[in-house]
Amino acid sequence: MVDILHRIGVEHATPDRVYEALTTVHGLSGWWTETTTGSTAVGDVIEFRFPPGGFDMEVVDAVPSSRVAWRVVDGPDEWVGTTIDWELRQDGDWTIVLFRHEGWREPVEFMHHCSTKWATYLMSLKALVESGVGAPAPRDVHVAFPD
Amino acid sequence: MVDILHRIGVEHATPDRVYEALTTVHGLSGWWTETTTGSTAVGDVIEFRFPPGGFDMEVVDAVPSSRVAWRVVDGPDEWVGTTIDWELRQDGDWTIVLFRHEGWREPVEFMHHCSTKWATYLMSLKALVESGVGAPAPRDVHVAFPD
Repeated sequence: MVDILHRIGVEHATPDRVYEALTTVHGLSGWWTETTTGSTAVGDVIEFRFPPGGFDMEVVDAVPSSRVAWRVVDGPDEWVGTTIDWELRQDGDWTIVLFRHEGWREPVEFMHHCSTKWATYLMSLKALVESGVGAPAPRDVHVAFPD
Repeated sequence: MVDILHRIGVEHATPDRVYEALTTVHGLSGWWTETTTGSTAVGDVIEFRFPPGGFDMEVVDAVPSSRVAWRVVDGPDEWVGTTIDWELRQDGDWTIVLFRHEGWREPVEFMHHCSTKWATYLMSLKALVESGVGAPAPRDVHVAFPD
Protein backbone atom coordinates (compact mmCIF):
# COMPACT_ATOMS: atom_id res chain seq x y z
CA MET A 1 0.00 0.00 0.00
CA VAL A 2 1.43 3.34 -0.99
CA ASP A 3 0.16 6.83 -0.27
CA ILE A 4 0.47 10.30 -1.73
CA LEU A 5 1.49 12.74 0.99
CA HIS A 6 1.74 16.52 0.82
CA ARG A 7 1.96 19.51 3.12
CA ILE A 8 1.44 23.21 2.53
CA GLY A 9 1.43 26.25 4.77
CA VAL A 10 -1.15 28.93 4.03
CA GLU A 11 0.03 32.33 5.20
CA HIS A 12 -2.13 34.90 7.00
CA ALA A 13 -4.89 32.33 7.22
CA THR A 14 -6.89 30.61 9.91
CA PRO A 15 -8.01 26.98 9.52
CA ASP A 16 -11.63 28.04 9.08
CA ARG A 17 -10.75 29.78 5.81
CA VAL A 18 -9.05 26.67 4.43
CA TYR A 19 -11.91 24.54 5.75
CA GLU A 20 -14.36 26.69 3.81
CA ALA A 21 -12.34 26.14 0.62
CA LEU A 22 -12.60 22.37 1.20
CA THR A 23 -16.24 22.16 2.22
CA THR A 24 -18.18 24.47 -0.09
CA VAL A 25 -18.83 24.09 -3.80
CA HIS A 26 -17.76 27.70 -4.25
CA GLY A 27 -14.47 27.11 -2.45
CA LEU A 28 -13.69 23.83 -4.23
CA SER A 29 -14.47 25.48 -7.59
CA GLY A 30 -11.85 28.09 -6.81
CA TRP A 31 -8.84 25.78 -6.58
CA TRP A 32 -9.56 22.27 -7.92
CA THR A 33 -12.02 22.43 -10.77
CA GLU A 34 -14.49 25.07 -11.82
CA THR A 35 -16.93 22.28 -12.66
CA THR A 36 -17.76 21.19 -9.13
CA THR A 37 -21.33 20.24 -8.20
CA GLY A 38 -23.14 18.22 -5.56
CA SER A 39 -23.42 18.50 -1.82
CA THR A 40 -20.58 18.77 0.69
CA ALA A 41 -22.42 17.47 3.78
CA VAL A 42 -21.16 14.28 5.43
CA GLY A 43 -22.68 11.29 3.61
CA ASP A 44 -23.32 13.28 0.46
CA VAL A 45 -21.41 13.19 -2.83
CA ILE A 46 -19.43 15.95 -4.53
CA GLU A 47 -18.88 15.67 -8.29
CA PHE A 48 -15.62 17.05 -9.63
CA ARG A 49 -15.36 17.24 -13.42
CA PHE A 50 -12.31 17.92 -15.60
CA PRO A 51 -11.87 17.98 -19.38
CA PRO A 52 -10.74 14.29 -19.41
CA GLY A 53 -13.25 12.97 -16.84
CA GLY A 54 -13.77 13.32 -13.13
CA PHE A 55 -14.26 11.99 -9.65
CA ASP A 56 -17.24 11.50 -7.36
CA MET A 57 -16.31 11.83 -3.70
CA GLU A 58 -18.44 10.82 -0.76
CA VAL A 59 -17.79 13.11 2.18
CA VAL A 60 -16.93 10.78 5.07
CA ASP A 61 -15.79 13.29 7.67
CA ALA A 62 -15.94 17.04 8.19
CA VAL A 63 -14.82 18.49 11.52
CA PRO A 64 -14.93 22.30 11.33
CA SER A 65 -11.49 23.90 10.97
CA SER A 66 -9.78 20.58 11.64
CA ARG A 67 -10.38 17.69 9.25
CA VAL A 68 -12.08 16.73 6.00
CA ALA A 69 -12.15 13.26 4.46
CA TRP A 70 -13.51 11.95 1.20
CA ARG A 71 -13.89 8.49 -0.30
CA VAL A 72 -13.76 8.09 -4.07
CA VAL A 73 -16.98 6.40 -5.17
CA ASP A 74 -16.62 6.91 -8.93
CA GLY A 75 -13.75 7.82 -11.26
CA PRO A 76 -10.67 6.10 -12.69
CA ASP A 77 -10.30 2.48 -11.55
CA GLU A 78 -7.11 3.29 -9.66
CA TRP A 79 -8.95 5.91 -7.60
CA VAL A 80 -12.18 4.11 -6.70
CA GLY A 81 -12.10 3.11 -3.03
CA THR A 82 -9.14 5.33 -2.16
CA THR A 83 -9.51 8.04 0.45
CA ILE A 84 -8.40 11.65 0.61
CA ASP A 85 -7.74 13.12 4.01
CA TRP A 86 -7.12 16.73 4.97
CA GLU A 87 -5.86 17.79 8.38
CA LEU A 88 -5.72 21.48 9.30
CA ARG A 89 -4.05 23.21 12.21
CA GLN A 90 -3.03 26.71 13.16
CA ASP A 91 0.67 27.51 13.58
CA GLY A 92 1.16 31.19 14.31
CA ASP A 93 0.01 33.20 11.32
CA TRP A 94 -0.16 30.06 9.17
CA THR A 95 -2.54 27.22 8.57
CA ILE A 96 -0.73 23.94 8.03
CA VAL A 97 -2.49 21.50 5.71
CA LEU A 98 -1.52 17.84 5.82
CA PHE A 99 -2.84 15.91 2.83
CA ARG A 100 -2.99 12.15 2.32
CA HIS A 101 -4.40 10.25 -0.65
CA GLU A 102 -4.39 6.69 0.68
CA GLY A 103 -5.32 3.23 -0.49
CA TRP A 104 -3.60 3.02 -3.87
CA ARG A 105 -3.20 -0.66 -4.69
CA GLU A 106 0.01 -0.28 -6.72
CA PRO A 107 2.53 2.52 -7.32
CA VAL A 108 1.56 2.73 -10.99
CA GLU A 109 2.79 5.50 -13.29
CA PHE A 110 -0.61 7.22 -13.01
CA MET A 111 0.00 7.48 -9.24
CA HIS A 112 3.29 9.30 -9.89
CA HIS A 113 1.37 11.70 -12.12
CA CYS A 114 -1.40 12.27 -9.59
CA SER A 115 1.14 12.97 -6.85
CA THR A 116 2.71 15.83 -8.81
CA LYS A 117 -0.68 17.08 -9.96
CA TRP A 118 -2.01 17.09 -6.38
CA ALA A 119 0.97 19.25 -5.40
CA THR A 120 0.05 21.83 -8.00
CA TYR A 121 -3.59 21.83 -6.87
CA LEU A 122 -2.50 22.26 -3.25
CA MET A 123 -0.46 25.27 -4.36
CA SER A 124 -3.66 26.46 -6.07
CA LEU A 125 -5.56 26.09 -2.78
CA LYS A 126 -2.80 28.03 -1.01
CA ALA A 127 -2.98 30.79 -3.62
CA LEU A 128 -6.78 30.94 -3.44
CA VAL A 129 -6.81 31.46 0.32
CA GLU A 130 -3.81 33.78 0.36
CA SER A 131 -4.68 35.96 -2.61
CA GLY A 132 -8.23 35.12 -3.65
CA VAL A 133 -7.12 33.60 -6.97
CA GLY A 134 -6.46 29.89 -7.43
CA ALA A 135 -5.70 27.88 -10.56
CA PRO A 136 -8.55 25.36 -10.85
CA ALA A 137 -9.14 23.31 -14.00
CA PRO A 138 -9.37 24.27 -16.80
CA ARG A 139 -6.86 26.99 -15.78
CA ASP A 140 -4.67 24.45 -13.96
CA VAL A 141 -0.89 24.08 -14.06
CA HIS A 142 0.13 21.36 -16.49
CA VAL A 143 2.73 18.90 -15.29
CA ALA A 144 2.73 16.52 -18.25
CA PHE A 145 0.31 15.19 -20.83
CA PRO A 146 -2.50 14.20 -20.77
CA ASP A 147 -3.09 16.34 -17.79
CA MET B 1 8.13 1.80 3.90
CA VAL B 2 6.70 4.76 2.06
CA ASP B 3 7.96 6.53 -1.02
CA ILE B 4 7.61 9.91 -2.65
CA LEU B 5 6.59 9.48 -6.29
CA HIS B 6 6.30 12.10 -9.01
CA ARG B 7 6.07 12.38 -12.78
CA ILE B 8 6.55 15.28 -15.15
CA GLY B 9 6.55 15.60 -18.91
CA VAL B 10 9.10 17.94 -20.43
CA GLU B 11 7.89 19.32 -23.76
CA HIS B 12 10.04 19.69 -26.88
CA ALA B 13 12.83 17.82 -25.12
CA THR B 14 14.86 14.69 -25.62
CA PRO B 15 16.00 12.59 -22.64
CA ASP B 16 19.62 13.65 -23.16
CA ARG B 17 18.71 17.24 -22.31
CA VAL B 18 17.03 16.21 -19.05
CA TYR B 19 19.90 13.83 -18.33
CA GLU B 20 22.33 16.72 -18.67
CA ALA B 21 20.31 18.74 -16.14
CA LEU B 22 20.60 15.82 -13.70
CA THR B 23 24.25 14.94 -14.22
CA THR B 24 26.15 18.21 -14.45
CA VAL B 25 26.80 20.74 -11.70
CA HIS B 26 25.71 23.46 -14.10
CA GLY B 27 22.43 21.69 -14.85
CA LEU B 28 21.66 20.86 -11.21
CA SER B 29 22.40 24.46 -10.21
CA GLY B 30 19.78 25.58 -12.69
CA TRP B 31 16.79 23.88 -11.09
CA TRP B 32 17.53 22.55 -7.56
CA THR B 33 19.98 24.81 -5.81
CA GLU B 34 22.42 27.37 -7.11
CA THR B 35 24.88 26.17 -4.47
CA THR B 36 25.74 22.80 -6.00
CA THR B 37 29.31 21.50 -5.91
CA GLY B 38 31.15 18.20 -6.15
CA SER B 39 31.44 15.58 -8.85
CA THR B 40 28.62 13.87 -10.70
CA ALA B 41 30.47 10.70 -11.76
CA VAL B 42 29.24 7.34 -10.45
CA GLY B 43 30.78 6.74 -7.03
CA ASP B 44 31.40 10.43 -6.43
CA VAL B 45 29.48 12.81 -4.19
CA ILE B 46 27.46 15.90 -5.12
CA GLU B 47 26.91 18.53 -2.41
CA PHE B 48 23.63 20.43 -2.55
CA ARG B 49 23.35 23.37 -0.17
CA PHE B 50 20.30 25.45 0.75
CA PRO B 51 19.85 28.31 3.22
CA PRO B 52 18.74 25.90 6.02
CA GLY B 53 21.25 23.10 5.30
CA GLY B 54 21.82 20.57 2.58
CA PHE B 55 22.31 17.07 1.24
CA ASP B 56 25.31 15.07 0.10
CA MET B 57 24.38 12.54 -2.58
CA GLU B 58 26.53 9.68 -3.77
CA VAL B 59 25.87 8.98 -7.43
CA VAL B 60 25.04 5.27 -7.59
CA ASP B 61 23.89 4.97 -11.18
CA ALA B 62 24.01 7.06 -14.34
CA VAL B 63 22.88 5.53 -17.63
CA PRO B 64 22.97 8.18 -20.35
CA SER B 65 19.51 9.49 -21.31
CA SER B 66 17.84 6.77 -19.26
CA ARG B 67 18.46 6.66 -15.51
CA VAL B 68 20.15 8.48 -12.64
CA ALA B 69 20.24 7.32 -9.02
CA TRP B 70 21.62 8.93 -5.88
CA ARG B 71 21.98 7.74 -2.30
CA VAL B 72 21.86 10.31 0.49
CA VAL B 73 25.09 10.04 2.48
CA ASP B 74 24.70 13.20 4.57
CA GLY B 75 21.84 15.53 5.44
CA PRO B 76 18.76 15.44 7.69
CA ASP B 77 18.43 12.18 9.66
CA GLU B 78 15.23 11.28 7.82
CA TRP B 79 17.06 11.48 4.49
CA VAL B 80 20.30 9.63 5.22
CA GLY B 81 20.24 6.23 3.55
CA THR B 82 17.27 7.03 1.31
CA THR B 83 17.63 6.86 -2.46
CA ILE B 84 16.48 9.12 -5.25
CA ASP B 85 15.83 7.55 -8.60
CA TRP B 86 15.18 9.22 -11.94
CA GLU B 87 13.92 7.34 -15.01
CA LEU B 88 13.76 9.09 -18.36
CA ARG B 89 12.08 8.06 -21.58
CA GLN B 90 11.03 9.63 -24.84
CA ASP B 91 7.34 9.83 -25.69
CA GLY B 92 6.81 11.72 -28.93
CA ASP B 93 7.94 15.30 -28.47
CA TRP B 94 8.12 14.83 -24.68
CA THR B 95 10.53 13.41 -22.18
CA ILE B 96 8.74 11.65 -19.36
CA VAL B 97 10.53 11.79 -16.00
CA LEU B 98 9.58 9.26 -13.32
CA PHE B 99 10.90 10.23 -9.90
CA ARG B 100 11.06 8.13 -6.73
CA HIS B 101 12.48 9.11 -3.36
CA GLU B 102 12.52 5.77 -1.58
CA GLY B 103 13.48 4.34 1.78
CA TRP B 104 11.76 6.73 4.20
CA ARG B 105 11.37 4.90 7.50
CA GLU B 106 8.16 6.66 8.57
CA PRO B 107 5.61 8.95 6.88
CA VAL B 108 6.55 11.84 9.15
CA GLU B 109 5.29 15.38 8.59
CA PHE B 110 8.67 16.33 7.11
CA MET B 111 8.09 13.69 4.43
CA HIS B 112 4.77 15.35 3.50
CA HIS B 113 6.66 18.62 3.17
CA CYS B 114 9.44 17.11 1.05
CA SER B 115 6.90 15.51 -1.28
CA THR B 116 5.31 18.86 -2.11
CA LYS B 117 8.67 20.57 -2.30
CA TRP B 118 10.03 17.91 -4.69
CA ALA B 119 7.03 18.57 -6.95
CA THR B 120 7.92 22.26 -7.16
CA TYR B 121 11.56 21.43 -7.92
CA LEU B 122 10.48 18.99 -10.63
CA MET B 123 8.41 21.80 -12.13
CA SER B 124 11.59 23.90 -11.92
CA LEU B 125 13.50 21.19 -13.82
CA LYS B 126 10.74 21.14 -16.44
CA ALA B 127 10.90 24.93 -16.78
CA LEU B 128 14.68 24.91 -17.03
CA VAL B 129 14.72 22.44 -19.91
CA GLU B 130 11.69 23.93 -21.67
CA SER B 131 12.56 27.60 -21.33
CA GLY B 132 16.11 27.85 -20.02
CA VAL B 133 14.99 29.32 -16.68
CA GLY B 134 14.37 27.20 -13.59
CA ALA B 135 13.60 28.21 -10.01
CA PRO B 136 16.48 26.79 -7.94
CA ALA B 137 17.08 27.81 -4.33
CA PRO B 138 17.28 30.53 -3.21
CA ARG B 139 14.77 31.54 -5.90
CA ASP B 140 12.61 28.49 -5.18
CA VAL B 141 8.83 28.29 -4.83
CA HIS B 142 7.81 28.30 -1.17
CA VAL B 143 5.23 25.75 -0.13
CA ALA B 144 5.25 26.40 3.61
CA PHE B 145 7.66 27.45 6.31
CA PRO B 146 10.48 26.77 7.00
CA ASP B 147 11.06 26.01 3.41
